[in-house]
Amino acid sequence: MQKMDYFVQREVLDELRLDEVAQKGTWSTKPTLGERVKESLRCSVPRLKHTAQSWVPVLGWLPHYSIRENAIGDLISGCSVGIMHLPQGMAYALLASLRPVFGLYTSLYPVLIYFIFGTSRHISIGTFAVISIMIGSVTERIAPDSNFIVNGTNGTDIVNVDDRDAFRVQIACSLTVLAGIFQILLGVVRFGFVVTYLSEPLVRGYTTGSACHVCVSQLKYLFGVTPSRFTGPLSLIYTLVDICRLLPQTKVPELVVSLVALSVLIVVKELNACYRQKLPLPIPIELIVIIAATIITHFCGLTSKYSIDVVGEIPSGLKAPRAPDTTLFSQVIGDAFAVAIVGYAINISLGKTFALKHGYKVDSNQELVALGLSNTVGGFFQCYSVTSSLSRSLVQESTGGKTQVAGVISSVIVLITVLKIGALFEDLPKAVLSTIVFVNLKGMFKQFMDIPELWRTNKVDLLVWLVTFTSTILLNLDLGLAVSIGFSMLTFIFRTQLPRYAILGHVSGTDLYLDTDSYREAKEIPGIKIFRSSTTIYYTNAEMYLEALQEKSGIEIGKLLTAKKKRDAELKRKQEKEKKKEKKKAKKQIQGNGPALSLTETSTNSLSKGQVNWAYQHDKTMLDSDSDTGCPGDGSINQESHYGDDVEGWACGSGTHSIILDISTTSFVDTVTVNTLKNIFRDFEEIDLDIYLAGCQACVVEQLETAGFFSESIPKSRLFVTVHDAVLHILKKRGQTDFILVRSSL
Amino acid sequence: MQKMDYFVQREVLDELRLDEVAQKGTWSTKPTLGERVKESLRCSVPRLKHTAQSWVPVLGWLPHYSIRENAIGDLISGCSVGIMHLPQGMAYALLASLRPVFGLYTSLYPVLIYFIFGTSRHISIGTFAVISIMIGSVTERIAPDSNFIVNGTNGTDIVNVDDRDAFRVQIACSLTVLAGIFQILLGVVRFGFVVTYLSEPLVRGYTTGSACHVCVSQLKYLFGVTPSRFTGPLSLIYTLVDICRLLPQTKVPELVVSLVALSVLIVVKELNACYRQKLPLPIPIELIVIIAATIITHFCGLTSKYSIDVVGEIPSGLKAPRAPDTTLFSQVIGDAFAVAIVGYAINISLGKTFALKHGYKVDSNQELVALGLSNTVGGFFQCYSVTSSLSRSLVQESTGGKTQVAGVISSVIVLITVLKIGALFEDLPKAVLSTIVFVNLKGMFKQFMDIPELWRTNKVDLLVWLVTFTSTILLNLDLGLAVSIGFSMLTFIFRTQLPRYAILGHVSGTDLYLDTDSYREAKEIPGIKIFRSSTTIYYTNAEMYLEALQEKSGIEIGKLLTAKKKRDAELKRKQEKEKKKEKKKAKKQIQGNGPALSLTETSTNSLSKGQVNWAYQHDKTMLDSDSDTGCPGDGSINQESHYGDDVEGWACGSGTHSIILDISTTSFVDTVTVNTLKNIFRDFEEIDLDIYLAGCQACVVEQLETAGFFSESIPKSRLFVTVHDAVLHILKKRGQTDFILVRSSL
Repeated sequence: MQKMDYFVQREVLDELRLDEVAQKGTWSTKPTLGERVKESLRCSVPRLKHTAQSWVPVLGWLPHYSIRENAIGDLISGCSVGIMHLPQGMAYALLASLRPVFGLYTSLYPVLIYFIFGTSRHISIGTFAVISIMIGSVTERIAPDSNFIVNGTNGTDIVNVDDRDAFRVQIACSLTVLAGIFQILLGVVRFGFVVTYLSEPLVRGYTTGSACHVCVSQLKYLFGVTPSRFTGPLSLIYTLVDICRLLPQTKVPELVVSLVALSVLIVVKELNACYRQKLPLPIPIELIVIIAATIITHFCGLTSKYSIDVVGEIPSGLKAPRAPDTTLFSQVIGDAFAVAIVGYAINISLGKTFALKHGYKVDSNQELVALGLSNTVGGFFQCYSVTSSLSRSLVQESTGGKTQVAGVISSVIVLITVLKIGALFEDLPKAVLSTIVFVNLKGMFKQFMDIPELWRTNKVDLLVWLVTFTSTILLNLDLGLAVSIGFSMLTFIFRTQLPRYAILGHVSGTDLYLDTDSYREAKEIPGIKIFRSSTTIYYTNAEMYLEALQEKSGIEIGKLLTAKKKRDAELKRKQEKEKKKEKKKAKKQIQGNGPALSLTETSTNSLSKGQVNWAYQHDKTMLDSDSDTGCPGDGSINQESHYGDDVEGWACGSGTHSIILDISTTSFVDTVTVNTLKNIFRDFEEIDLDIYLAGCQACVVEQLETAGFFSESIPKSRLFVTVHDAVLHILKKRGQTDFILVRSSL
Repeated sequence: MQKMDYFVQREVLDELRLDEVAQKGTWSTKPTLGERVKESLRCSVPRLKHTAQSWVPVLGWLPHYSIRENAIGDLISGCSVGIMHLPQGMAYALLASLRPVFGLYTSLYPVLIYFIFGTSRHISIGTFAVISIMIGSVTERIAPDSNFIVNGTNGTDIVNVDDRDAFRVQIACSLTVLAGIFQILLGVVRFGFVVTYLSEPLVRGYTTGSACHVCVSQLKYLFGVTPSRFTGPLSLIYTLVDICRLLPQTKVPELVVSLVALSVLIVVKELNACYRQKLPLPIPIELIVIIAATIITHFCGLTSKYSIDVVGEIPSGLKAPRAPDTTLFSQVIGDAFAVAIVGYAINISLGKTFALKHGYKVDSNQELVALGLSNTVGGFFQCYSVTSSLSRSLVQESTGGKTQVAGVISSVIVLITVLKIGALFEDLPKAVLSTIVFVNLKGMFKQFMDIPELWRTNKVDLLVWLVTFTSTILLNLDLGLAVSIGFSMLTFIFRTQLPRYAILGHVSGTDLYLDTDSYREAKEIPGIKIFRSSTTIYYTNAEMYLEALQEKSGIEIGKLLTAKKKRDAELKRKQEKEKKKEKKKAKKQIQGNGPALSLTETSTNSLSKGQVNWAYQHDKTMLDSDSDTGCPGDGSINQESHYGDDVEGWACGSGTHSIILDISTTSFVDTVTVNTLKNIFRDFEEIDLDIYLAGCQACVVEQLETAGFFSESIPKSRLFVTVHDAVLHILKKRGQTDFILVRSSL
């Protein structure tokens, strides 16, 4: 009996709850305009300071900079990163099809801007392979060699390299400024969330695909061949085929230089990795190789003897800022958007990793603004698009860098190089720079190990990885990214389109209701079907929901509706007949009682028992469920047996009298869902099945209310907090309360 | 005490359950290959018959056709529909920029094919406004008037209408065949579900947008002007502007004819609607208007007097089938796909409506095949693409049509017209056909009423409606559809990206846990935070989940981790110091006990109390949660008080010791989610918070297992069926079982 009280209490709670939702929902979420204005005025002064600091974070931390704690770490780390900037800057500039010096500029200005506006303390902004190759694909597309061919002195066609390179810089700068503007805009409108569309498998597949592009683009320097330039889809494949075709023309000296540099780099990098714990700083092998290669090439005269391709003139000093060529914007707008998104994605993922490790917060929108400003300002100073590089950031963090002061110090080193030392690198073979690119791709190629890993853990994500990789390879970096994001979203939609539908059963002795297919202990309650979809119901799967409900519960609503209509028609016909008979009789007999009443009574007697019961109970059910306060009297057991009889007789073969839809997994409702649910209520009530909803989330109840779901025929009393409450309500209504009680006392 | 037993029982159940999932899951879903082969052999003969019937449904129902029951209804309905086919066919052919006779062909052949392969008994296949305008936009794009200009006799440029129309027919047929092939392919690979992407608001917005296109395209006939032809985005706007510009050149006679026909049609249609109940058949006013207009035009010589534009030559008899021009396929492939999808969407939605009303089943994949075959075969006979028309289907159903035999009868009527009567309509003014199109658009323009309706019920769906409508208007029917589908999918993704996060509280006296923000009665249990997202966790919102968890629970994991690291470092330093001291001491003293043991004991004593407790309890917690069988002894109360102390002391200001993640709304997990959950477990355990998962669906548990989520540090015992079980487990472990018991006995 105590148990009973408990449940009564819960039903009362339900009603309380429903009223409260509306009240509290409105009240707690929406302060009036007046309140908001007051509130905003009250805290405007400290907020101003806070706003300034949130837009220009350097104001927040630099005044409190503790020289004692941070200076040494930042200095060492800044020097290490600065030393890394030199070879990487020059090598990646080649990837972007620019002269090496522009890679150095890119390692200089944007770092200073990021120092002012950035919120991450450990990432190292600058050149990065993936972004560089994206820039390279644009510069080579818009300014191919073939556009700059002039007639040489001896009749052969030669490329006007100076013009070409000048134009390419313009293209890269325009693209960079545009990408920066995109990033700033996205940051200002707080659209930092777009990066969440780049899921981990997608980013890893994409970077692996980009690494392949980088590789192929550098092969020409390695072998010293000059393949044709291809653009558009499949260009990677064409280039590769062309390089294979040209292999017999390999310049052996370049290959030798490459192989020597490559082996030195690999060996020392492995040593670095092995002795990471013991070395205070990693050996700056890239710088050493560059210096050594330059010295050897210069003093052994390799350029003249073997005509090895070298970096060429490196202008000393800085260049005056120049506005980007806005006429190019329309040609690079798509690429700029891709660069903006990819650059930001790489940046924020690294930033968040370090932030979590060191316990500070990275503001994703401010990062977007900071990166955008770095690009925009950088674009004016002949830099190309930047993001944080994994290798440099790791060095910056591991060598003790505490703040972005390390970045400033690294810039100083790059600045010195550009101003004084740069010109010394003129004899550096391009092949050596290529090997540096190759070696830095190791981490990205390691990502191929994702494939067996994902095969074991998550096949859908493997599919995303593979589709991303393949589309990046085949459709290049911009279109490939768009296709991948689209596909990734589609996988989510497919997953919600293929939910598992289950009939839930009661686990004896508990108030648990579990999938009867998966759990042996879950037993269906006779006459009650509890139906659940594993995912939210929305327009793509609403129809399937209805179908699955019919299939799983074994109730074919269409057939039953037709059968019922026929029966109704028959009943009507019979009644009409009876009426006529009755009238005839009445005419013959003495007229005493009200004719209508006697008519009904007589006709009821003359009909088969099942049909009367049904007609009677139909009204009864409706009445019961609408008022929901009726307490079943002593006659309820009697009534219940009636139900059992005629329901099993014809209504639906399975003897089901109630259906509970557990919609706890539904997180919102759209019009299609509301209509589907309405139809379910209408059609199933038509064939005398009671429908109940259980487990609605508060927000779903609100949305159902707004959508006008509840009405006379679908009263709110059909809603229950849990499946168990609905079951108890049904059993109580049908006088079967002993069922659960007996079970749970076992 | 009985209550306690109950909960113990439930925990045991959990473990049982988890093992069973794997076993039963594998066993029940995958029969061995042998079993499947046997099974398929055993039922191959009846299955063959069944297969034939499912691919050619006419074999299933025609042999059982009851002439007594159906023949009269089908005959009347067939005649009514046939009479409607004539004006609609001719009018819609104009929409498709084809000669009217091709509309009649389209009302003839496809209906016969659908009779054989279709599964719906009530829909009327044939011409339809939306599809016609889609075809029209293609024919006018590929074969504009300007391509067929020849020099007239008197020096002016005239259009070679015959050549143009012949080419347009070729285009329409190619498109139709291609669309049919798409539909057949989609049907064969059972891709009928693609239509679910066309949600109701989308379809209604789209058809309303198409209706505007139809309207604008017919205005020229109404006013008798000839605007320039525009293609591509915004063509609707340009055309409208051009028509306005040409308004002063309106041919008054055409306008008069249009207005008269329009007013007659509207009045009689309204009468039809009013007296629907009383009229046995609707008045075939369209046919009457056509006949009357033809007669008047012919006998009053309107053509010669006022140069009214008439239909022109209508060839009698049928044309031999001709293969479509496959060279056009590449130009129409996008449009063909759009036509295939839109045609199917309209068809299936009507079919399903009637099927539900009359209690039979429409097979969505077979419908796709049937429609595809109707189009493909029709395309060979100079038909253009078909779908079911709402107006005709309603007439077919309401006049008593029971089967597709009605369709065959309607074809016969069309056939007679084409063979014998067609030529009589040569003097029919095109303006009259336009008015028929206009009048038939009424239903679609009524859909503008969706806007206020959706504003009240569902603003997101209103947005879908508006975006679909606008993009259809601005970007035309093909591109507009693609944009709308994309946007519709994005709304779903946005909705799952903006979930409501809630801290759940316990409702006293129940085992319910509800959102503390929405429900006043829900009270948080001290020390336990129960966190829930309203929607599934996946890659786009996984990060937000982590952020919301920190914000809602007030636990800033980054700061706490840093604090802990500092403390650890300090602790280590102190211990090292102690060690050194100890060693010095030990050297001085006599060496008796094991040095390590004494060392630890001493150092423990010398440390502050809080830190020791923490270190001790950290291990203890881990141990507890891993084994999960340990029964807290008498000392548990004592221990519990320790927890309380030091947790409130420093671990997290709020005094939280456990977090329960209610993931009952999650319907699948991807890699990003698994990693996020892993990180939550790792980081929160690090600062000594116990994490539990509650309410996992069976499929989610399976996916977590596959993804290797469970490990030494995240044992399966952290999973609970319900939040209540997890809470009881925590309270029991901490010796607070009285909390719930006391509350529930109140």
